[in-house]
Amino acid sequence: MSIVTLITDFGTTDGYVGAMKGVLYSRAPSVRVVDVTHDIHPHDIAGAAHALTNSVPYFPDRTIHVCVVDPGVGGERKAVIVVNNDQILVGPDNGVFALLAPRPQAAYEISEPAYRRDRPSMTFHGRDIFASAAAELARGGRPEDAGPQVVLRGRLSLESTTGAAVKVAHVDVFGNLITNLRKARIPKQARFRVAGRDIASLSKNYENVGEGELLAYIGSRGTLELAIRDGNAAESLGASRGTVVEIISPPGESTI
Amino acid sequence: MSIVTLITDFGTTDGYVGAMKGVLYSRAPSVRVVDVTHDIHPHDIAGAAHALTNSVPYFPDRTIHVCVVDPGVGGERKAVIVVNNDQILVGPDNGVFALLAPRPQAAYEISEPAYRRDRPSMTFHGRDIFASAAAELARGGRPEDAGPQVVLRGRLSLESTTGAAVKVAHVDVFGNLITNLRKARIPKQARFRVAGRDIASLSKNYENVGEGELLAYIGSRGTLELAIRDGNAAESLGASRGTVVEIISPPGESTI
Amino acid sequence: MSIVTLITDFGTTDGYVGAMKGVLYSRAPSVRVVDVTHDIHPHDIAGAAHALTNSVPYFPDRTIHVCVVDPGVGGERKAVIVVNNDQILVGPDNGVFALLAPRPQAAYEISEPAYRRDRPSMTFHGRDIFASAAAELARGGRPEDAGPQVVLRGRLSLESTTGAAVKVAHVDVFGNLITNLRKARIPKQARFRVAGRDIASLSKNYENVGEGELLAYIGSRGTLELAIRDGNAAESLGASRGTVVEIISPPGESTI
Repeated sequence: MSIVTLITDFGTTDGYVGAMKGVLYSRAPSVRVVDVTHDIHPHDIAGAAHALTNSVPYFPDRTIHVCVVDPGVGGERKAVIVVNNDQILVGPDNGVFALLAPRPQAAYEISEPAYRRDRPSMTFHGRDIFASAAAELARGGRPEDAGPQVVLRGRLSLESTTGAAVKVAHVDVFGNLITNLRKARIPKQARFRVAGRDIASLSKNYENVGEGELLAYIGSRGTLELAIRDGNAAESLGASRGTVVEIISPPGESTI
Repeated sequence: MSIVTLITDFGTTDGYVGAMKGVLYSRAPSVRVVDVTHDIHPHDIAGAAHALTNSVPYFPDRTIHVCVVDPGVGGERKAVIVVNNDQILVGPDNGVFALLAPRPQAAYEISEPAYRRDRPSMTFHGRDIFASAAAELARGGRPEDAGPQVVLRGRLSLESTTGAAVKVAHVDVFGNLITNLRKARIPKQARFRVAGRDIASLSKNYENVGEGELLAYIGSRGTLELAIRDGNAAESLGASRGTVVEIISPPGESTI
Repeated sequence: MSIVTLITDFGTTDGYVGAMKGVLYSRAPSVRVVDVTHDIHPHDIAGAAHALTNSVPYFPDRTIHVCVVDPGVGGERKAVIVVNNDQILVGPDNGVFALLAPRPQAAYEISEPAYRRDRPSMTFHGRDIFASAAAELARGGRPEDAGPQVVLRGRLSLESTTGAAVKVAHVDVFGNLITNLRKARIPKQARFRVAGRDIASLSKNYENVGEGELLAYIGSRGTLELAIRDGNAAESLGASRGTVVEIISPPGESTI
C-alpha cells in the first residue's frame, strides 16, 4: 500500500492532475495518492524545491514523491527517479531536487517501457511518464530497473550567502520571509536589518512582540525567518525572494 | 482505519500541509487523511469556525477533525483535544471551536509526550503538536490520555442578532450572504432589506426569481441566506461579513 | 473499494466539499474519494466539461465521477446518473456531460430515496443528492435502480468549427490555447494565425522554438494547441475562449 505524493504547478481546474491520479489508480490499484500542492507558481522550480524540502522528510521511508514543475517538458532534460535517504523522488532533472537531495544515493533515467505509457505525448510527461513511473514503483518496481544510472545535471540558482548578509529564499503564504541560514550559524546577540528596518534580537515566538511588529526567529525548518505578528511582512516591507537580510554582530563577536 | 480531516489557513504551496500529512502517515500508517480546506483566509478564525460547522456534522462518528488557524501559535493559548457529539476536534483553544461546539462534552490539553513530536517548534504546531496528536488518536489513543482536562477559554465574537435585524455571518464562494438566523425564527410573510434593496418574500430556490435578481431563502444549513441568481450578491451589493439584514414583519405579526 | 472523484465549483473554504466527503464516508465507509478539482470558475459548465474530458478517461473502469457545477440547482434540470464507456457519471443534466459523453449508454434520474438524503435542501444537491447517490453506487447500488431512465437534455454550446478556422475551446492554467481540432483534420504543411500573429508550422514540443516565441503543436489531448514557450499565450495575445484560430493550407491542399 505505497504512498505517492504529488507536487505540481498544474493547478487543478484543467483536470491534468486528475489525469495523473487516474493513471496512478489504474496501474497501481492499491496506491494511496496524497496531494502536497498543485499551486506552485507556473514554472517556479525553486518554489517546488522548497515545497519538497518542507514536506518530504516527514513521510515514511519508501514514500514515492512525484514533482512535476517542468518548463522544459519534451526537451533535453531527462526524466529521472532519484533515491535519497530512503525516499524515492520522481520528476524532471531540472534542479527541482537540488535543494532536498544535493548528493543523492543514485539517480536513474526513466526509459524502460514498463515505466512509461505507450507513445507518451511531448507536452504532458506528468501523466505519460512521471505518474506512470510512480505507479510502477508503487507496484514494487525497482528504481534501478527504470533505465540507466545517470548523474543529475539540474542545478538550482540558490541565493548566495555572503559575509554578514543572507537573501530571502522563499516567501510563504503568510508573507513570512524565509532564509536558508541555519540557527548554528547565527551569532549570539546578533541584530538584523531588512528593508531599512532594524530588529534587535531573535524572538522565541510571535507573541514575544506586539501586534504589527517585525520579528526575527528560528522557523520550523531550523533557519532564520522574519515576520510581522498578525501581519504580512512581504507586503509591508515590499520584500520578496532575493531581498537582503543583514546580520549584524556585536563588536568582538565573529560574523557568520 | 480512522479518518482525519484537515482545515488550515496554510495554503498548499509551502509544503506545510504536506509536512502535516507526512507526520500523520508516519505515525498512523493506516490513517485516511481528508482535505476539507487549506484556503481559509490567513488568521480568519471565524471563517474556520464556519467551515467546521458546514462539514463536521456529516462525517462518521469518531472522525478526528484537525483545525489549525492559529495566529497565537507558541503563545499562551492551549493546544486542545475537544470531544463533541461523538466527534473529536483537535486545534488551538482560540475560539475556532466555539460555533460548532459551544458546550462540548470535554476538552483536554495536549501535553503528554506521546501526543507531540519531540522538541516541538514554536511556530509550527500544526506539524509538531496537532498532526501528531491526531495520529495518536487515530492509532487508538484516548483524548483523556493527552493531558489534563481543561475548560475552553476561546470565544468567537459572533455577530449579534438584535431586534428585527441580523448581520451577515459569512460570505461564501458564490458571494451568497449567509446569516445564523434559523428558519423557525423568521416570521411568516416577512420581507427583507439589505444594502438598500428590498426582497418581498422568501424563495424556495434560485429559479423562483429571474436571472440577476436578488432573493432570500433558507440555505442548506437551515438559516437565512441572500443571493443573486447567477450573480454575486456580495460584490453587487458591496456587502460583507457584518452587513445588516433587516427582517420586516407585516403589521400585527411579532418580530424575531 | 470504489473510487469516487469530485469536480465542483465550490472552492473549499466554505466546507461544502467537506460536507460532500462526510456524506460519502458516512454512507460508504470503504470508499476512496479523489479530488479532481473544486476550482472550476463558478457556474462554468464548459470548464467542468473540459476537466471531465481531461481526467475521466484515465481512471479504472467503474470509477464514479461526481460533477457538481449546477447553477440551476433546485430548478427543473434533473439530477442524473450517466453510464458511459464503463464509467459512471453523477451530476445535473445541464450539459456538463455533453463533451465527454455525447452518446452515453444510458442515463437515469436520481429519484429513489436510497440514493438521496432525507428531505434534500433546495440549494445543496451536491451534498443531499449527488454525494448520496455516489455513495449508494460505491456500496454496490446499480445505476438503473436510482430511478427512471431518461434522455439527457443538457447541451453545451461548443464553439463551432467552420471552414479553415477553429475557435479556442479552453484556456488552461499556463495560458495555453486549446482547441478541439484533432490532428488528423489538420492539413500537412498548414500554417496558423491567431490574434494577428503567424505560425509557420506545427512544432513537436516547446523546445522547438526560442524562449518567448509562439508555437502550435498537438497537445496531450490529441488536438491543436497554441502556446508561448516559457510564457502565457492568453495574456500576451489577449486571447480567450472563443478567439479565432485560422488554419491556412498551402495552395493545392484541401482545407479542413
